[in-house]
Amino acid sequence: MSDGAKTDLRKPHPLDPLSAEEVVATANILRSAKPEMDIIFNTITLKEPPKKLMLKYLGYDHLEEGTSKSNVTVPREAFVVIIEKEVGMVYEAIVSLDDNSLASWIHIPGVQPIITAEEVLTVEALILQDEAVQAECRELGIDMNNVYADPWAIGHIEKYKGADRRLLTALMYYRNFEDDNQYAHPLDFVPVVDVTLMKVIEVERIPPKSSKFTRPVIPMENHNFLPEFLDPKTMRTDIKPIQVLQPEGVSFTVDGNQIAWQKYKFQISFNYREGLVIHNVTYQDGDKLRPLFFRMSMSEMVVPYADPESPHYRKHAFDVGEYGLGLCTNSLALGCDCLGTIHYFDAVMNDHEGRPFIVPQAICLHEEDRGLLFKHTDYRSGRAHVVRGRRLVVSQIVTVANYDYALYWYFNQDGTIEYEVKATGELNTTVLAEDEDPGDFGTIVAPQINAPHHQHFFVMRLDPMIDGVNNSVLQVDTMPVEAPVGSPENRWGNGFVAKQKLLEDTDAAQADANTATSRFWKIINPSSINPYTRKPVGYKISCMHTPPLFAKPGSIVERRAGFARKNLWVTQYDDEQMFAAGFYCNQNEGGDGLPEWTKTKKNVNNEDIVIWLTFGVTHLPRVEDFPVMPVETCGFSLKPCNFFNANPGLDVPSQSKHTNGSMLAFDPAVKYGKKGGLNPVDPLKMHHPSNEQGGSCCGSNPAPVASQASA
Amino acid sequence: MSDGAKTDLRKPHPLDPLSAEEVVATANILRSAKPEMDIIFNTITLKEPPKKLMLKYLGYDHLEEGTSKSNVTVPREAFVVIIEKEVGMVYEAIVSLDDNSLASWIHIPGVQPIITAEEVLTVEALILQDEAVQAECRELGIDMNNVYADPWAIGHIEKYKGADRRLLTALMYYRNFEDDNQYAHPLDFVPVVDVTLMKVIEVERIPPKSSKFTRPVIPMENHNFLPEFLDPKTMRTDIKPIQVLQPEGVSFTVDGNQIAWQKYKFQISFNYREGLVIHNVTYQDGDKLRPLFFRMSMSEMVVPYADPESPHYRKHAFDVGEYGLGLCTNSLALGCDCLGTIHYFDAVMNDHEGRPFIVPQAICLHEEDRGLLFKHTDYRSGRAHVVRGRRLVVSQIVTVANYDYALYWYFNQDGTIEYEVKATGELNTTVLAEDEDPGDFGTIVAPQINAPHHQHFFVMRLDPMIDGVNNSVLQVDTMPVEAPVGSPENRWGNGFVAKQKLLEDTDAAQADANTATSRFWKIINPSSINPYTRKPVGYKISCMHTPPLFAKPGSIVERRAGFARKNLWVTQYDDEQMFAAGFYCNQNEGGDGLPEWTKTKKNVNNEDIVIWLTFGVTHLPRVEDFPVMPVETCGFSLKPCNFFNANPGLDVPSQSKHTNGSMLAFDPAVKYGKKGGLNPVDPLKMHHPSNEQGGSCCGSNPAPVASQASA
Repeated sequence: MSDGAKTDLRKPHPLDPLSAEEVVATANILRSAKPEMDIIFNTITLKEPPKKLMLKYLGYDHLEEGTSKSNVTVPREAFVVIIEKEVGMVYEAIVSLDDNSLASWIHIPGVQPIITAEEVLTVEALILQDEAVQAECRELGIDMNNVYADPWAIGHIEKYKGADRRLLTALMYYRNFEDDNQYAHPLDFVPVVDVTLMKVIEVERIPPKSSKFTRPVIPMENHNFLPEFLDPKTMRTDIKPIQVLQPEGVSFTVDGNQIAWQKYKFQISFNYREGLVIHNVTYQDGDKLRPLFFRMSMSEMVVPYADPESPHYRKHAFDVGEYGLGLCTNSLALGCDCLGTIHYFDAVMNDHEGRPFIVPQAICLHEEDRGLLFKHTDYRSGRAHVVRGRRLVVSQIVTVANYDYALYWYFNQDGTIEYEVKATGELNTTVLAEDEDPGDFGTIVAPQINAPHHQHFFVMRLDPMIDGVNNSVLQVDTMPVEAPVGSPENRWGNGFVAKQKLLEDTDAAQADANTATSRFWKIINPSSINPYTRKPVGYKISCMHTPPLFAKPGSIVERRAGFARKNLWVTQYDDEQMFAAGFYCNQNEGGDGLPEWTKTKKNVNNEDIVIWLTFGVTHLPRVEDFPVMPVETCGFSLKPCNFFNANPGLDVPSQSKHTNGSMLAFDPAVKYGKKGGLNPVDPLKMHHPSNEQGGSCCGSNPAPVASQASA
Repeated sequence: MSDGAKTDLRKPHPLDPLSAEEVVATANILRSAKPEMDIIFNTITLKEPPKKLMLKYLGYDHLEEGTSKSNVTVPREAFVVIIEKEVGMVYEAIVSLDDNSLASWIHIPGVQPIITAEEVLTVEALILQDEAVQAECRELGIDMNNVYADPWAIGHIEKYKGADRRLLTALMYYRNFEDDNQYAHPLDFVPVVDVTLMKVIEVERIPPKSSKFTRPVIPMENHNFLPEFLDPKTMRTDIKPIQVLQPEGVSFTVDGNQIAWQKYKFQISFNYREGLVIHNVTYQDGDKLRPLFFRMSMSEMVVPYADPESPHYRKHAFDVGEYGLGLCTNSLALGCDCLGTIHYFDAVMNDHEGRPFIVPQAICLHEEDRGLLFKHTDYRSGRAHVVRGRRLVVSQIVTVANYDYALYWYFNQDGTIEYEVKATGELNTTVLAEDEDPGDFGTIVAPQINAPHHQHFFVMRLDPMIDGVNNSVLQVDTMPVEAPVGSPENRWGNGFVAKQKLLEDTDAAQADANTATSRFWKIINPSSINPYTRKPVGYKISCMHTPPLFAKPGSIVERRAGFARKNLWVTQYDDEQMFAAGFYCNQNEGGDGLPEWTKTKKNVNNEDIVIWLTFGVTHLPRVEDFPVMPVETCGFSLKPCNFFNANPGLDVPSQSKHTNGSMLAFDPAVKYGKKGGLNPVDPLKMHHPSNEQGGSCCGSNPAPVASQASA
């Protein structure tokens, strides 16, 4: 194992998350500053430096090469959200870690910060103690000791409107034994909890769809996926191992949180809310280090459900703003979550006492073979040139109650950056009376178990820096030539054109996807011109997963998840504009975030801009998604579009079976002749262009292969 | 290496392609039957048995288990298309290989069969000899010895309307040396050749877009991608090898052309036209072997170009019907085209003399790790269960002049079957005068080199057998509940419904994609009911790549590629209906295939049906696509949709780093503490649910892992 992870003894990089020591220090500073206060440390996180300062620090203020740091000093600050115990007042504090002092302290009225794991666990215990809850269970005739509560954000209830009281609701389940799959035994009532008073204030019964049904008997049939509950005789035993090995080590290097791979350099960070964040992506193009993106992360997401009845209308989880992709992140396991040669990064967050907690192996970094990068065969000579691609993968996996999301950034050798969401885990389920049907709102995945229809929307915050800070966005629509078939301009009728529209301002820059015109968006730098096209260089946003939000205009979901009204928004950069549904998303009545920021028209042409891309899936559950869901994927890609002067992967050498260990599955001696194959008898091989030099790729470039092997 | 490829000494399976010996026998039978005739053997291929007979043979006539063969005998026949040399008459012959006799012989007037590699090579030579062509080159001042012609199908020219004369056109290029990339030096004239007379009958000059430009000087700057022409100093040397190894061998078995892997059984075949064909896909569901698809292949494709001027309107290659995915298939190279442990199948076709020619290693079969199959973590205990997925890949790669297409079938452990096209190779290019601009019709990828905009459409012929021969297709559209926000039916406005529409007949079953309703189609078996949903079992067609055909109604392209008017057609099964643009696609004036077959309305509900799915991409070339194009992908998936009674991958065991060889990239001793990681200092690890048992997947099921290791 090489020691590619360099020592990092200097003070942390300005973008490094707070260390465990810094979390401790921050909490201590606050406690001594507010000795009288009984503090709940909701979140303690790095206050990211202002972009202007970071651009200076990174040397982008006059667009020098991205790495040459000027001697700018960047203050090291912690941003803390505090809830006063029992009182429930919310405060924001900024702590200076340079001079260990409280730099600012404000009370924020009428907001509710993010929900923490500790709250979720305490509230579950509270619910199970509650008399009204126990009464419901008695009536259902189920053993209280096996009842479980998944606390959820309240979303919105008219009678508890607003965010003055800190509320949680919960979905209730039963387990036949400790690790039983509770989503096979959903209960039919929903408690509401005042978290400040630590009190169940209401228990709502979910009635059957029609009055002709009585209260259901909870289904007790088990539907498990944990191996110890499956019949070992039914498990597949015919899966031979696949080993992905890197005998010469990995091709990337890690210096603290800075990663270099192939032509890419970038930095990662991690926070309680967005989880993994990608910073300052650059690409080495010849002797030019070209900036691509200043910052990229998932800013928010929402999962609205289809059923218009209560409590389903309240189920529209904002898994970033209400629960936190950081707070919900998994500790990843080598050889299971991650295959191959892996580097892990840990994550540091805080608990209510202001103590650090660590999620070991929260971020996975590794390389993957990507299949063909490009190939061409000259049909005359049969001379083929094949180059296999490689990608660098940076990923995390989060668990938000029933659902699990695996989140992947991919960096490819052709300059393409991709993002993929794999949704898996457990469907949210509700109980049905026998013979009750969820109609058009859900799928019966097992007797009496309804998996309600829903949508998943993910909104990415993409802060581009395509060859520099000032960028614009073009909308490209392809359409037939207007002139009719037979006319001089379109005589044979095949004509079509690609029209580009500049999204000038924040009004114009609220766009829907449109497959009818093969629409895509292009981030360009008006002051960086491609020598061949003579037009600005750009990066193209391709996204195939753009369902509309089915919640109606004026609906609660549409108000709270305003970002999902459009697939793409462009805003002027603002340090304060990070979260598409507002910073205080939990119990937010709506209107915050993108709708608020775009109320007054602002120029986004040749500006420091931020792009907000919403993508997702409409999920009509299948029986096959139960009792655990095979991954459902969606995502988008960022492709260089006339940014380079040629295919940037041209310099990737071919591979050889001698270095990648490829071999034949079966004895070649028996392959021709009597056995197998599409030609069961041994043929007279005839001359033909297509097989004269078939697959000459390996032999075609010994030099690069050799240098690769000896690297 | 195990010997998983079983001996196959019995007579060929009825679906086995003709062997080399059978090709020879067929040609000899025809020669002796027509001693007077000077025969060009255009194509010699297996005449696939009628479906009714195959269903009997496979035991599906009364839906027994798919494998139990009754003692049906299936005739072994060759289907031959012949062109009479110099005369140009076209004949179809059927040869019985059971009694070595000519079973049928018909003259087919007014058609032109597929173009062969031999024609392409002969016509190029002919063109280079032609006086008019040489005159053009003299005027361009280029050396005739370095001129190359890529013959293309004629498409359509009014004055040579119809298919009575066998015609080819060609796009002309220059090379500075033998393996120079000719697409960097396109010429500005287009010969037309009468292939029967072996005569250039016209040379068309391509004028600059505007009269203000004179005839261009051909750009001589080189743009190469072959490694020997790249500066070795510029090649990447920092890509460490990735080895994909299967120390215990592969998990699939091969018996002739029958493949078994995990729960799947299917058979492959190969022909000159469709290339790879997938037959009789079944899935072992408990003790039931359930049929899924009877036959799947790419039936046709078309690549129309955007520029309405001549000759671009003629450029709409039908790479299946005009050139053949079989005839154009590559011989694949181990370790380059294919990584890992590979089984190859050869392909047998014929030359003009009726001799067999073999493409060795035409089809690649191998397994791949597929990343997460599913995962769920119980946030209370941190207990995670992670199962990695595996897929079986069957693929081929074709080269059609400048373009290369890699075509992949993927079989997944969750019952999902996917198909992916990777388009790569060389952009079609045209020459520009200096300062000439292609406007909205193309991209300048290098000085004076225009890469014209175009689209790629692929139409799949999917013959389903979901739990049996008679199937139907539902169209599923999701939309908001109609009732307004605040009304009793949609009080909070979140309501949405999934509406299913049965495509009853061939009129209704001509459908467009619609992202506005998250539309998808579902193949169902009305007589096989899922016990939970109480509705028919089905397979869902998901396709994200559905651009519209931009060629106008009534245009030549739209007439010839009628299939591309719609994304989905459903027809009644008919042995004769194989090719979506007609069997004699070359020089076809249009109307054949799907438009013809659907003229009279036929029932497709609970019938033996065939589904025609068209997908593709609108390709506006990027500078990055030159001089060789990074793969551009598109495809579709077939997902079980309430077909099974649970996640069919439940029985897939977890993996362990001990069997898959996963390891850490860097010395763990330096990972915590002073170096790297998101926590630069060694933290006090606090209790937290999310890291208590993080990644317990490996330990959670020793049994299956062990049995896997010892398998």
